Amino acid sequence: MTTLEKYLPALVWLKGYRTADLKHDSVASLIFTIMVIPQSLAYAMLAGLPAITGLYASILPSILYSLFGSSRTLAVGPVALTSVMTASAVLPFAVSGSEHYASIAILLAFMSGVLLLVLSLLKLGFLTNLLSHPVISGFISASALLIIIGQIKYFLGIESNGSTLVPLATSLYAHVSNTNLPTLLLSVFSIASLLLVKRYFGRFLLLLGLPTSSVQLFEKSGPVVVVIVTTFIVAILSLDQLGVAVIGSVPTTPPTINLDIISWQMIKALLPGAFLITIVGFIGSVSVAQSYAAKRRQDIHPNQELVGLGLANIGAALSGSFPVTGGFSRTVLNADCGSKSPMTGIISALLILLTLLFMTPLFYYLPTTILAAIISISMAKLISFSDLKKLWQFSKKEAYLLIVTFCTVMLEGMETGLIVGVILSILFFLWHTSHPHIAIVGRVPGTEHYRNVQRFEVETHSKVLTVRIDENLFFANARVLEEQLQNLVSQNKDIQHLVLMCTAINMIDASALQSLEKVVLRLADAGVKVHLSEVKGPVMDKLIGSILLASLSGKVFLTQHQAIKALTVEQADE
Amino acid sequence: MTTLEKYLPALVWLKGYRTADLKHDSVASLIFTIMVIPQSLAYAMLAGLPAITGLYASILPSILYSLFGSSRTLAVGPVALTSVMTASAVLPFAVSGSEHYASIAILLAFMSGVLLLVLSLLKLGFLTNLLSHPVISGFISASALLIIIGQIKYFLGIESNGSTLVPLATSLYAHVSNTNLPTLLLSVFSIASLLLVKRYFGRFLLLLGLPTSSVQLFEKSGPVVVVIVTTFIVAILSLDQLGVAVIGSVPTTPPTINLDIISWQMIKALLPGAFLITIVGFIGSVSVAQSYAAKRRQDIHPNQELVGLGLANIGAALSGSFPVTGGFSRTVLNADCGSKSPMTGIISALLILLTLLFMTPLFYYLPTTILAAIISISMAKLISFSDLKKLWQFSKKEAYLLIVTFCTVMLEGMETGLIVGVILSILFFLWHTSHPHIAIVGRVPGTEHYRNVQRFEVETHSKVLTVRIDENLFFANARVLEEQLQNLVSQNKDIQHLVLMCTAINMIDASALQSLEKVVLRLADAGVKVHLSEVKGPVMDKLIGSILLASLSGKVFLTQHQAIKALTVEQADE
Repeated sequence: MTTLEKYLPALVWLKGYRTADLKHDSVASLIFTIMVIPQSLAYAMLAGLPAITGLYASILPSILYSLFGSSRTLAVGPVALTSVMTASAVLPFAVSGSEHYASIAILLAFMSGVLLLVLSLLKLGFLTNLLSHPVISGFISASALLIIIGQIKYFLGIESNGSTLVPLATSLYAHVSNTNLPTLLLSVFSIASLLLVKRYFGRFLLLLGLPTSSVQLFEKSGPVVVVIVTTFIVAILSLDQLGVAVIGSVPTTPPTINLDIISWQMIKALLPGAFLITIVGFIGSVSVAQSYAAKRRQDIHPNQELVGLGLANIGAALSGSFPVTGGFSRTVLNADCGSKSPMTGIISALLILLTLLFMTPLFYYLPTTILAAIISISMAKLISFSDLKKLWQFSKKEAYLLIVTFCTVMLEGMETGLIVGVILSILFFLWHTSHPHIAIVGRVPGTEHYRNVQRFEVETHSKVLTVRIDENLFFANARVLEEQLQNLVSQNKDIQHLVLMCTAINMIDASALQSLEKVVLRLADAGVKVHLSEVKGPVMDKLIGSILLASLSGKVFLTQHQAIKALTVEQADE
Repeated sequence: MTTLEKYLPALVWLKGYRTADLKHDSVASLIFTIMVIPQSLAYAMLAGLPAITGLYASILPSILYSLFGSSRTLAVGPVALTSVMTASAVLPFAVSGSEHYASIAILLAFMSGVLLLVLSLLKLGFLTNLLSHPVISGFISASALLIIIGQIKYFLGIESNGSTLVPLATSLYAHVSNTNLPTLLLSVFSIASLLLVKRYFGRFLLLLGLPTSSVQLFEKSGPVVVVIVTTFIVAILSLDQLGVAVIGSVPTTPPTINLDIISWQMIKALLPGAFLITIVGFIGSVSVAQSYAAKRRQDIHPNQELVGLGLANIGAALSGSFPVTGGFSRTVLNADCGSKSPMTGIISALLILLTLLFMTPLFYYLPTTILAAIISISMAKLISFSDLKKLWQFSKKEAYLLIVTFCTVMLEGMETGLIVGVILSILFFLWHTSHPHIAIVGRVPGTEHYRNVQRFEVETHSKVLTVRIDENLFFANARVLEEQLQNLVSQNKDIQHLVLMCTAINMIDASALQSLEKVVLRLADAGVKVHLSEVKGPVMDKLIGSILLASLSGKVFLTQHQAIKALTVEQADE
């Protein structure tokens, strides 16, 4: 791979690209585009923006990612979670629907793009690892539930606001008496139809006599059919006159940013939100990309993914839309439509552009309630209690972590929930490593193996104590180590030699080094020599030349068995 | 040990306490009290309070710690670091010297006491482990330097304020022209005398013909002699009339808290400061206590230390003073004076009470400049560059951590410096563990040992790949692991079996479990079976019943050698 190919992965797949591939990808793109349009409109609405913005967010970002991203399958565009996080980041600063609101969303997309590129330049992708599985699980379930509750206003045709449980519920309760009956009926119809087509559309197509291969391809288009049908119903019955909200006429140009809003203060205020959108979007995207790459035995380069998604977000800002990322349902759709190369991303972007130029009048009567129904049904799938059940069996502590994250998101919002979750996971981990498992070991008779005295029948010596520390030695457990080693010695008044068996120690930092040095000196005062055994190569490299080796009262033994042989012989000599 | 004895350790040492011990401890206490008084006065001044408050802070706290603390040697009272941290916590809310200021300092002592007790109840003592050695080292050096710079105003007899480098320097520069000449001369005399007695007082006493044993005891009293001499000079020459600041007449009652200042808002605002004072004080105290306990082969119980110091701080609040803790120089003094039990803490507290009741007029002419000199000289010993040099050799990253902490304390203050240091150490550690050392291993010919292919000449198999992961598996490296294992497999297209050798894995969390499960499923899709070998007992306990074992495509082998034997035989059969 050349350097250029590394930075522009499109060069690799374009090299072997043939006319036959183009034909195949064009058909796949056409089907994908038709199916992805309702989803894109819905997610724009979720971000608090005019639904049509969802199409703008699906053009330039998709093309840029196809050229610069490292996944061959990932589809980039508006995604439910980042969309709703966008709404919650922008809402404190502007009223939904205002020009100001759109400008801030654009700024957010730009910041998210820049952040992704910065993370890539500084190789800080590892920061995304700080979101542990229980935190993500609690976060996604709670966010999905909040999103569904947020859709109720569209189902009832009422006003409501707030982005967390209590204000949302209060606001809904206050306005519920204004429910618009036609809207409610249409909502019930939409949800019921969507659930029915999901289950029965495939069988229906088979009954119509379509070949199985076409059925497999088209059965996913059920929602599109429901969208078309409900749009017709609204148009024919003029339901918009009865208070049913529709998309209406669509501006022919994308929103543009009002540069007056950009100030350091605004950027600083948006930064935490932008950062969390970036991290959450990136993690979701990479995990989808990786699962497809693994199936096809392709590689994913997380650093190149940061570049691809970063440019996609800058593209989103340039086309007047909001933060985008690689989406799960979008990518599944793409793969199911038969996409074999990122070319489908480029072709479908062009098709969406054509739609925007010539076909927006068709969307006039599209009711927002059907979009809310699409959102709610896809979100309902994300609320999972099976994760909690599994965690509960595996580790109660991690299960509580999920519950705390879930509740914090519901009550305090998505950002606070994530941050609380991350801090708690780090503290839990540090707590765990700061209470290291320390085993006294002895020799399994007749072998050179040394095992825990509490689990095995082993030989020990009254004057030589061997301790195996099952943890990296670093600041969080340095002082605990000090304490425990000293207590072990003060409980065994006879011992003259303490051997630290270092098989499970992969790293040692300056704090641990200092603590060990203290232990060595203090035990020397008390007449006990400290020895090391089975130190790993990389750890030994670090120790050489350090103060610990200089002040060590005992020796460093290559193996535990050599240590015991030498020290017990010495003892016999005395 | 009975339960009561556990909660009131004094019962243990009081049991064997005899009249002879009391005599010995009374002599030790008398000498200790005389020597500790100037230090206590100085540290109260450092806390921004009337010097006499330092004596109040040495009575009740010392008695309470003697009864409830677990160390037999630790001396509790005002300490330099926590005193200056008190000043920096209180200064934003009140003018030094005001009644308001004293009230807030009292509140701070009370909060610190409660926090210590809460940490003890919730067994959260491990939080103190988050301060790594480089952070503490940078913090102490910078704080000591700031304290010395803060004393310059006393040496020059001018006004100045600010608690970080830039405002302090600016303020000193603005007022330097007001320097009081008599004060400056007395300062030079004080510093020079202190330095001289430190070096030559022992020899001088020997020349006087004192026996060696008495010299060893009294040579540390040099500073007391200097204090007495300078106080005489001020009194005889009436230097206070020439602008030399003296302690003056001392109120006969301790300061009391003005209850009006207590509001939730004030408590919330003081909380971060109180928390840091508590943590820093506790760490310093425990480390001194431990070093003496180790020498004497006694135990320290960190949880009981939290109780002892917590009650001591509540005692400090009740006697109208400020946060206290176990001090390094105080404890050294105590041990050197021959203290053998916590009884010295109680006796010296009573002696200080007598001093307060009857001897404060003797302090009238005591110049503040001598106290500033005592502080500066003891702080100068804490500024150390040898730590930085050692760290630089051991780990550049940790050396930078020290430098960043040092600079942040100097420029942004002690609290910010500590917090930045802690966050960076945690990120450094997570960064390290999120880039685990992963080695491909093979068999050392003729043995059952498996070692890194890059360090040893070993036998490998084209279809069986064995990987040793040298790290705990948890959220921060779960995704990296996923990536690396997949890449390893995609680079070795022939392999059919992947064996994970788990010798260095001490823990596994739900995130890692999920990642491993994904790897297992994806590799199964690609025709590769995943096996485990040498899983440790506690890790295996966790895995049993988890989804990973259920979905594992391969087997769990007790030893690596059994795995290779089984898998290569199977291969030969095919």
